[in-house]
This record gives sequence, structure tokens and C-alpha cells, in this order.
Amino acid sequence: MIRMGVIGYGYWGPNIVRNFNHTEGMTISSICDLNPNMLKRAKKFYPNIELTSDMNDILSSPNIDAVAVVTPVATHFDLAKKALENGKYVFVEKPFTQTVAQAEELIELADRKKLKIMVDHTFLFTGAVRKIKQVIDEGILGDLYYFDSMRVNLGLFHHDANVIWDLAPHDFSIMDYLIKETPKAVVATGRAHFNHGLEDVAYITLFLSNNMIAHFNINWLSPVKVRTTLIGGDKKMLVWNDLDADEKIKVYDKGVEVKNGEKYNLLVSYRSGDMWVPKIDQIEALKLEAEYFVECMTNGKIPMNDGRAGLRVVKMLEAANQSLKNKGEMVSI
Amino acid sequence: MIRMGVIGYGYWGPNIVRNFNHTEGMTISSICDLNPNMLKRAKKFYPNIELTSDMNDILSSPNIDAVAVVTPVATHFDLAKKALENGKYVFVEKPFTQTVAQAEELIELADRKKLKIMVDHTFLFTGAVRKIKQVIDEGILGDLYYFDSMRVNLGLFHHDANVIWDLAPHDFSIMDYLIKETPKAVVATGRAHFNHGLEDVAYITLFLSNNMIAHFNINWLSPVKVRTTLIGGDKKMLVWNDLDADEKIKVYDKGVEVKNGEKYNLLVSYRSGDMWVPKIDQIEALKLEAEYFVECMTNGKIPMNDGRAGLRVVKMLEAANQSLKNKGEMVSI
Amino acid sequence: MIRMGVIGYGYWGPNIVRNFNHTEGMTISSICDLNPNMLKRAKKFYPNIELTSDMNDILSSPNIDAVAVVTPVATHFDLAKKALENGKYVFVEKPFTQTVAQAEELIELADRKKLKIMVDHTFLFTGAVRKIKQVIDEGILGDLYYFDSMRVNLGLFHHDANVIWDLAPHDFSIMDYLIKETPKAVVATGRAHFNHGLEDVAYITLFLSNNMIAHFNINWLSPVKVRTTLIGGDKKMLVWNDLDADEKIKVYDKGVEVKNGEKYNLLVSYRSGDMWVPKIDQIEALKLEAEYFVECMTNGKIPMNDGRAGLRVVKMLEAANQSLKNKGEMVSI
Amino acid sequence: MIRMGVIGYGYWGPNIVRNFNHTEGMTISSICDLNPNMLKRAKKFYPNIELTSDMNDILSSPNIDAVAVVTPVATHFDLAKKALENGKYVFVEKPFTQTVAQAEELIELADRKKLKIMVDHTFLFTGAVRKIKQVIDEGILGDLYYFDSMRVNLGLFHHDANVIWDLAPHDFSIMDYLIKETPKAVVATGRAHFNHGLEDVAYITLFLSNNMIAHFNINWLSPVKVRTTLIGGDKKMLVWNDLDADEKIKVYDKGVEVKNGEKYNLLVSYRSGDMWVPKIDQIEALKLEAEYFVECMTNGKIPMNDGRAGLRVVKMLEAANQSLKNKGEMVSI
Repeated sequence: MIRMGVIGYGYWGPNIVRNFNHTEGMTISSICDLNPNMLKRAKKFYPNIELTSDMNDILSSPNIDAVAVVTPVATHFDLAKKALENGKYVFVEKPFTQTVAQAEELIELADRKKLKIMVDHTFLFTGAVRKIKQVIDEGILGDLYYFDSMRVNLGLFHHDANVIWDLAPHDFSIMDYLIKETPKAVVATGRAHFNHGLEDVAYITLFLSNNMIAHFNINWLSPVKVRTTLIGGDKKMLVWNDLDADEKIKVYDKGVEVKNGEKYNLLVSYRSGDMWVPKIDQIEALKLEAEYFVECMTNGKIPMNDGRAGLRVVKMLEAANQSLKNKGEMVSI
Repeated sequence: MIRMGVIGYGYWGPNIVRNFNHTEGMTISSICDLNPNMLKRAKKFYPNIELTSDMNDILSSPNIDAVAVVTPVATHFDLAKKALENGKYVFVEKPFTQTVAQAEELIELADRKKLKIMVDHTFLFTGAVRKIKQVIDEGILGDLYYFDSMRVNLGLFHHDANVIWDLAPHDFSIMDYLIKETPKAVVATGRAHFNHGLEDVAYITLFLSNNMIAHFNINWLSPVKVRTTLIGGDKKMLVWNDLDADEKIKVYDKGVEVKNGEKYNLLVSYRSGDMWVPKIDQIEALKLEAEYFVECMTNGKIPMNDGRAGLRVVKMLEAANQSLKNKGEMVSI
Repeated sequence: MIRMGVIGYGYWGPNIVRNFNHTEGMTISSICDLNPNMLKRAKKFYPNIELTSDMNDILSSPNIDAVAVVTPVATHFDLAKKALENGKYVFVEKPFTQTVAQAEELIELADRKKLKIMVDHTFLFTGAVRKIKQVIDEGILGDLYYFDSMRVNLGLFHHDANVIWDLAPHDFSIMDYLIKETPKAVVATGRAHFNHGLEDVAYITLFLSNNMIAHFNINWLSPVKVRTTLIGGDKKMLVWNDLDADEKIKVYDKGVEVKNGEKYNLLVSYRSGDMWVPKIDQIEALKLEAEYFVECMTNGKIPMNDGRAGLRVVKMLEAANQSLKNKGEMVSI
Repeated sequence: MIRMGVIGYGYWGPNIVRNFNHTEGMTISSICDLNPNMLKRAKKFYPNIELTSDMNDILSSPNIDAVAVVTPVATHFDLAKKALENGKYVFVEKPFTQTVAQAEELIELADRKKLKIMVDHTFLFTGAVRKIKQVIDEGILGDLYYFDSMRVNLGLFHHDANVIWDLAPHDFSIMDYLIKETPKAVVATGRAHFNHGLEDVAYITLFLSNNMIAHFNINWLSPVKVRTTLIGGDKKMLVWNDLDADEKIKVYDKGVEVKNGEKYNLLVSYRSGDMWVPKIDQIEALKLEAEYFVECMTNGKIPMNDGRAGLRVVKMLEAANQSLKNKGEMVSI
């Protein structure tokens, strides 16, 4: 039985507690938050879980095996580091850390202490992403041409992160999972429209090996909510609309063939066939992730969303932000 | 009565002839195409219009007042130049020219000869774009934050132009018309997936003055057709979906207010009210443009889509392509 | 403080408890269910509420002021009757009763005992229905031509009610609320496709006074979920799509004018203007209904969804089912 | 070479001429219309076709093999009768005739004269209907439960036909083609909202053999255009949205199984699998119908849309209108 302490009971913490607490093989034994109102709320739903406003009660408790760090990103490194030093498994909210150096240090520390880190890339556990993974891995799309994601909405503005740090971790972690390949370079542009200087609109291009290119349109100022990803392959093409309740994933038997590569003498043919909407499992992602956490911690399995996955995402974030600051200058990853 | 000769009767030429030929105050008197099949087709529909495969029959005819250049972009400069030298008004297909230098030379020549150039930015004459123009000019959107356009589809591959030269002229000319402001710099990325080396996917960011940023996602390899533009303002926000037959333009009473600019101490409030779908005139854009051509040529009015408008678009295209070749390097316009 | 006892803690009961229990001026003091598992579930969430499997504990308790009857319709009459006889207010799940006679007896009893009945026509408390009510009452639609509702989905099959008794109470109660007019007659058709003989598909026409007609398409066997109502008026027309998260209600400035009534000599003109999507309050309907219950019970206000409203709906249901059994024979209401 | 004369060059006639005139094996040799403006219009496009305002020029011409009757329904019988009497094949606009008796007389006459009648049920030749036919015939849907069609729009009001005679011929002919089964009875309701007494809204239920039921919602007063048909089967279910450019037909692997027929003791299970959008051929329906006309006239093949198909549709129309007049009284077919 893994006994977990949860640090942070604000926006996301209650979801972590609710799902991990009902998972076989683990129990939430303690919750920490600095805000007494949050603790009051926790008490109401979980009268039997220990509550504290001192995070050391969790970090140094001999009765706790794993620590979930569900706090603002600025605190991830310190909390995760202490937890690892005290011999605890760590589950960290995304993005993993604020810098690549921090992520590398945590990974090194965990390796040395033979502990494991899991980063909360929740989307990897949704039915939609798992189905797309299956479609790609079975070769249905063929070689990939592009990955084009749009994630826009009105709000939520953050006080300590621009739109890239807020929204891109979702898409970067999804792409990292779906496509076994590290981007080589990034170009990012964007704009801050309010005087606190945090960009609320950003456009990111990732250059991958071979033919492939990826693009991310993220925006806190859109009047409509859009969460759509296009994935083009040389065999088929896929559209994932995460807001469509019934037809989230559409696989199009469409394509183009360009024969005879001489410029000015192309023979282009288009293919258009049936379209297919695969059924998607109705699972709660966080529930599945909790079970996966128990499985990895118990069986010594390396999580697909381990510290190294978290590091790959932070590398992209760090490089994208550097490019953004330099108005689109290409930054190697 | 303006007598027009049309050079080029391939894909777009027939539309030009059909609309301009029925416009009061003008007549198509001659059509030129190098392809005899195209001339045969023209003869069937217009038995009374003179047909020729020698463009000089049009360029040097004393019975022709205006020349429509509806040929591939590589030929625009030469044809337009000869037409102007021979004292004729010029109507040129978009994009205006292949280079900024060519556009500037044609403008200078037309000014000197007191002739007029009109560039076929057809979209400016659609009911949708005219309605958006009205909404912006009336201040309904307030100060603009961003202009975000997506124009993707399967095909059509061109033999002599990448996706930027093919699709971006639409969006650049629309933005140029809607927003009275010249971009300062551009960052563009993209990829060619076939061995003729022409990019089929591209992402372009334009930096405008003050707060504003513009972005263009153009793609020849998409399984679905999307033609959507988001325009965010500080008062309201607009979504233009050109593929929606009945609700092309939606104006959202939505917004965000960020007070108190201290970092870490923002007061953000969101506003969400009614949505409004204005009625759009059902007009054929090209018909309206033909009438506007007659009006400008006859009354000495300077067309909004004159050579200078064409030049502004070519400047953006040239700069975007230079940035694209240099993997996102920022290029001043 | 109104002390309410809730009988029935199956599918809908937990929602009643959750909302009524947090409402100012009232408290849930007791829950009854015959199923021990349901009581166990209630205990977990509401350790302080008295639980019982004997409904008389509630019906005859001197500490209970109001009884919520959240049981299958076959039991509504007996339970509500006993509650009223014992001097308690009654809140009854829809449909109010199984027969018109039962509804009339309960109304008479309540009147005699000076008690009040509220029938749980939850939809009347949704933001969408309240907004439509406002649009109609303000005369925006003008005189109404028709009310055309479609409510189809896959399942849920009931064991003791056909699709009319299951789904039509929603639409009948909504129409009854929106349009202050009693239908005069009904024609209903339908079919049972499985051997228990309960119709799973039905089509109902209601004839109202003057010009107006209403139609209801209800279906348990549809592959897609549709919940759309069209309301046509002589000034404007409205479409309510309850499944559209952001644009539930659309008001169209569309219409037709037929002048000169001579047959074969009509002058018909069509009007098509802007479309308007009013903002809808994001409220939990049941929460609002709970507050309204307190208000009516406390202030002596007659609920709009009182026993008489329930009776009107049962009249339509009874007549529709009679017509259905007689293959579309018109039945007066 | 079949020489056809076309009577009626109003709304639909030009489409008939355009398609039949370019079909191999046939030519339009004469067009008749009482309106000189229509003839003028015809002359412009077809300078070589004989034009006349006297229908006898066509009906009695020895140089004409087939007559297309593209006039208001009130005139179909007389014109078709004369054409048949004069030994000509007949192509009649839908609905075939105004009464069942007329249709039967024409069929008898054609049989006697060994001539053929084709009724212009154009929809049978669309890619969508042909694909649905294939899906049903291959048993993909299994046994059918229901056929539920909605065809609503604003206008067009007719001067001589109510909404049933105007719109239902489309849906009745489609259902007749897809489902090889004659309805047994009909129940129809509706309402006329203007003082010429022609119903502009109608709801029709058809009872078919076994389990099956069909329903048609037709409306000239809808603010939105809807053309959707649901077809439920015991294996799969199909939705046809004729207004969806890219996904007209969706086949859902969805269903319900009700085991154990004892009332109050049902075991209901729901099945929900993949969805499939078959590719639809992009053909012009009328072109295909013209070719089919030539094929049937030349090879002695009996058209699927022959007089008997036309008769079946008129039977439904006549019965539906009788039921409508009697406020939903069931009428046998």
C-alpha cells in the first residue's frame, strides 16, 4: 500500500486526491495547503485524511512513501528535491520544472536514490490520445508530414506564467508521446497585450527530423474555445477535435501523391476515400494515471511520463520561450 | 465604354470575362490564350468576342482601353508593363508581381503615364469582408489585439509557387484592407514534403504596431477544409468562418480586463454577453469588383486595390518567403 | 426552516438531496429508500441525515414539513396523498401522476388542506427555457405559428413506461410554461420494436387555438442525440439546441409575408436579417428550483409548476397515449 | 437517337434540357412554354432547338420520340395522356399525377401502347441515396425499425399545392426506393397559417409492415434549413444529412438489445462502436437519370422510377392529404 502525501489543494489538487485516494494499492494519508480555506474544504470531503499547513509534515514523514507536488511550477524543484532526498517517490504537476537544469538535477537525484518520478501529463491517459497513439503505431497514417495543434480560449490568465508555460505543456507532452522523436529546433512568436508583460498569444513551430514539422497556436484571448489537432501522414490523415463529444477523432483516407519530381512537371493526384470515427474508451484519465502510478511504483516499471519525459517537455518550453523573447530566432533544442 | 482585352483564359480568366463582360460601361472585346482548347471554349460561350493566341493583338490594339492580366505571376510584370507603355489601364491577377522591385516599377510607370492599376484582390468585394470592414471601422471591436487566419485544404499544388505565394495573397490583402497599418516584420516557417522543394505547409507571424500581432496558418495537405479568421479586440471579438453558409460572421461580446498591472497581483475579469450574426449581402464579389473597376477608370477615383495595395501584399510575400528560407529569421518589411 | 424528507434515492434522488440540502431556509432531515445499497451511498455523503427504509417514518413524522416524492410514477399518487393527508407540502417528480383523475384528487386534497404541491418540471428553471420565456413574453417572436421539438437518443429504456411517459413530460411542461394556452386535441403515433410492448418511438401533434400547432418527435432508438426545438412566429423565429454549449438559443430575424389571400394570386415575400444569440445564465436549474420551493412554501406564492401545471401535463400524456393506442385517432384534451 | 420535346421551361425545365441535351443517344429537339420570356431565355442558350408556345407542336410531332412534361402537376395527366396516345415515351416531373386514378389510367394506357413512363424522382440518382441503398441492400443496417425524415426551410410557397404535395414527393420516392415495401396506412397532421388555406407545416406517419414506422416532418416556415433522415436498424443505424458537404452519410455501429421479454424484467444492453462515413460519388443526379432514361427506352428495361413507382408515391400523397383533412384520421393505402 503506497501512502501518498499531497502538497497543494487548490485548483487541481482535489482531482488528484479524489482519483488517487480511490485507487487500489494506494491511499492518500496527508494533504498540505497554506490556505486554511482549502484545508477546510478538504476536511469536509475527507474527514479521515490528515491535514497540515506545514509541508515538512509530509516531506519528512516516515509514514509517507510518495509525494504529489500540485503547487505552482516555481516551487516544483524545491519540493520534489526534498521529497527525493527523503527517499520518497514523486508525482509532479506539469510542467515538471521551471528550467532544464532543475529537471536534470531531479532526474539525476532520483536515479542515484533509485526512486521514481512521474510527471502529470494527464492527457496521455485520455481515451482520445491513447486511440491516436494506437492509430499512429499501427502505421495507419504512414510517415508523418505535420502535427498542427490549436488550443485557444478566453482565459485563464496566470500571474506567474505566460501562455506558453500554461498551455503548451499539454500539447508538447501529447506530441512527445505520440511521436517518438525529439524536436531539433523551435521558432516562436507571440505578444503580451497587458502591462504585466506575460504573452497571452503565441505561435510555435517545432522542426523535427526528416519531413516533419509541428505547429502550436495557443491563445488566452479567443472568443471561442478550440482544441483541435491535425496530423497529416502520407497514408491517411487524422483530425482530433477534443471538444466534439461523439466524434473526437476522424481518420481520413485522403492524401496526395506527387510523382515525377521535376519542377514544373509534377503529376499530382489526390486520393479521397471513406472517413472513419473510431470508438473511444470512456475512461477518466486521472483514474487511469493513478493506477499506472501504483503499477510503476510497485513493479519497477519505468513510467512513460517519467522525469525524462518531463525534461523533454521543459526543454521545448525553455527553447520556445527563448525564441519568443528573441522574436522568432531559431533556437536549437 | 471601356473596351477590355483579357490575356489568359485558364482557371480564373473565364470568371473575369463572365463578370466584366456583363458590366455596364465596359465590354470585353478580345481574349488571348496560348492554348487553342481554351480559345475553343471561349468561342463557344462568347461567339462575338475576338480571340487570339498572340498577346500583342491585345497589348498594342488601338481599340482596347484596358488589359486584364490573368496569367501566371511570372508573366505579370512584362505584360502589365507593355500594357501601361501602350497607354492602357491594367487589371492584374493577384499576386501583383513576383518582386517588390517589379511592383514599384509598374506603379512608377503608371503614375508617369497617368494610368491606373487595379489588382484583383477579389475577397475585398465579398459580402463577408465588407461587413467585417464595417464592423471594424465602426469601432465595434475596439483596439485590435490579433488577426489569426487559417486557410487549409487538400491541394491544389502549384508548379511554380509554394503555399505562401498561392494562399497568403488572399489573407494578406484582406488584412491590409481591414487594418490600415503596415506590418513591420515577419517570421515564417514551413516545410516542403515533396521533392520539388516548394513548401506545402507554412506558418507566418506578422508584427504590427502597438499591441497587434497577425498569424497565418496555410496548408495544402489538410484532410479538412478550414477558412477561419479570428479577430480579437479589446471591446468585442469576431470569428469569420467563410465555409459557413448561414453564419459566416459572429461578433462576440466577450473580453478580458486586466487591472492593476503589478505582476503577481492582477485583477482579471472576463466579460461574456450576447453573440450577433450580422446579415451579409449576397453579392457576387467579382461582379462588384468589375463595377468598381469601371467606376475608378471613369471617375478618376483611386482604387483601394490599386498598385500600391498590390505592392504592400508583395512586400509581405517577399519578406515572408525570405524568413521561410532562413527558418524563421525575422525579416523587416 | 422547512424540514424535508426525501422518498426515493435512486437515479434522481441524489440530485434532489444535493440541491435542496444546501438551500437557504430548508434542510433535508430524512431519506428513505427500499434498497439498502442506496441508503449506504446516502450515508457516505450525508452522515448526518436520518436514513430509513420505511416510508412511513417520513410520511408520518411530526418533524417533517415537506415530502419529496422521487419514486417511479406508479407510486406518486399514494405517497403524495398520504403526505398531504398528514399535512405536509409535497414536491413530486414528473410526471405528476399516472392519470388525470389522480392528479385532480391530489389537487383537490391539497386545496382542502391548504397545502401546496410542486411538480419537478426542472427544465423550467434552466437558463435556456427562462430566456426563451422572456423572448416570447416580450413579443419578439410575435404570434406563434408552431412549436416543433425533437428529443431523441439511444436509451434509456424503462420497464414501466413507454417513450411518451418517459420523454414527453419534459417537452409538454416546457411548452405549457412558454405558451399560456391549453391544447385542444392530440394525434399521436408510434411503435414498439421489442416484445414488452412499450413504444420506443413516438410522434405527437398537439392542436392549439388559432393558428398554432405543436409537434414532438421522441425516440429511444436514435444513434445520435438530438434535443432541438423550433419555434416559429410571425415576427421572428427561434431555434433552441440544448446540446450546443455556447449557442443554445438562436433568434432569427426571418419570416414570410403572404399578402393578397386570393388563391393562385399570392404575393409572398421573405425576410432575412441578422441572427442573435442571447447570453444565457449559467445556473444549476435544480438549485434555482429548490430556492423557488422555499420561496413558495414560505410566502404563500402559488408555484408556476404547481399541481395544476402537473395536471395539464398529465392530461396531454393521457390523451397522447390514448391516441397512440388508437393509431392516431384525434383525442380531445 | 431519341428525340425529346420538353414542355415547360420554368424553374426545373432548364435543368432537364441542359442534362438531357448532352446525353449520348438523345437530343432535345423542341421546347414549349407559354411564357415568351422563358422561350427567349431558351433561345439564348440553345439557338438550335426549336421553340414553340403551342404544346401540340410537340405532342403531335412525328419527329419527336419522347416528351418531357415539366409543368405544374395539374397538367401532368392531360399532357402525358396525349403524348402516350400519340405513341411517345413520357418523362414526367414529380409528383406523377394529381390523383391515383389518373396515375392508374396513364399506366394502363402506356402498357396497352407498349410505351414507357419515367417519373422524375431525381433524388434516386444522387450519390447519397444510391450509397444508402447499397448499405441497406447489403444488410448492413439489418432489419429496419424506422425511417425518420425532416425537410424544412423558409419557403418556397406554392400557389397550387400544400407543403405535402410540394415536399413529400421527394421523401416518399426516396423511401419507396430504399425500402421495398408499401405502407399500409398513414396519419397526417398539419396547419395552414395563411388565408389561402394551403398547409405550410405537416407531419406524416406511415405504418409499414412488421416493426417499421416512417415519419416525415415538412415545413415551409422554418428559419433554418434541415434535410436530415435517420434510419434505424437492428444491426446499425444511419444518419443522412444532405446539407453536409463532406459527411452526408454516417453509419453508426450502435444499437440496443432487449432480452427477456417479461415486462418489468428487461435486460437491456446498449452497443456503441465505430462510426463510418462512406465516400459518396460526386455525380450530377440529373445527368445520370438522363443516361438511365436512354438506357431504359433503348433496351426495353423497366425503369425503377416508372409509372408504378410514380403511382406508389401518389397513393401516399393522396392518403396523407386525406388524413390531413380529417385531422389525423388513419387512412389505408
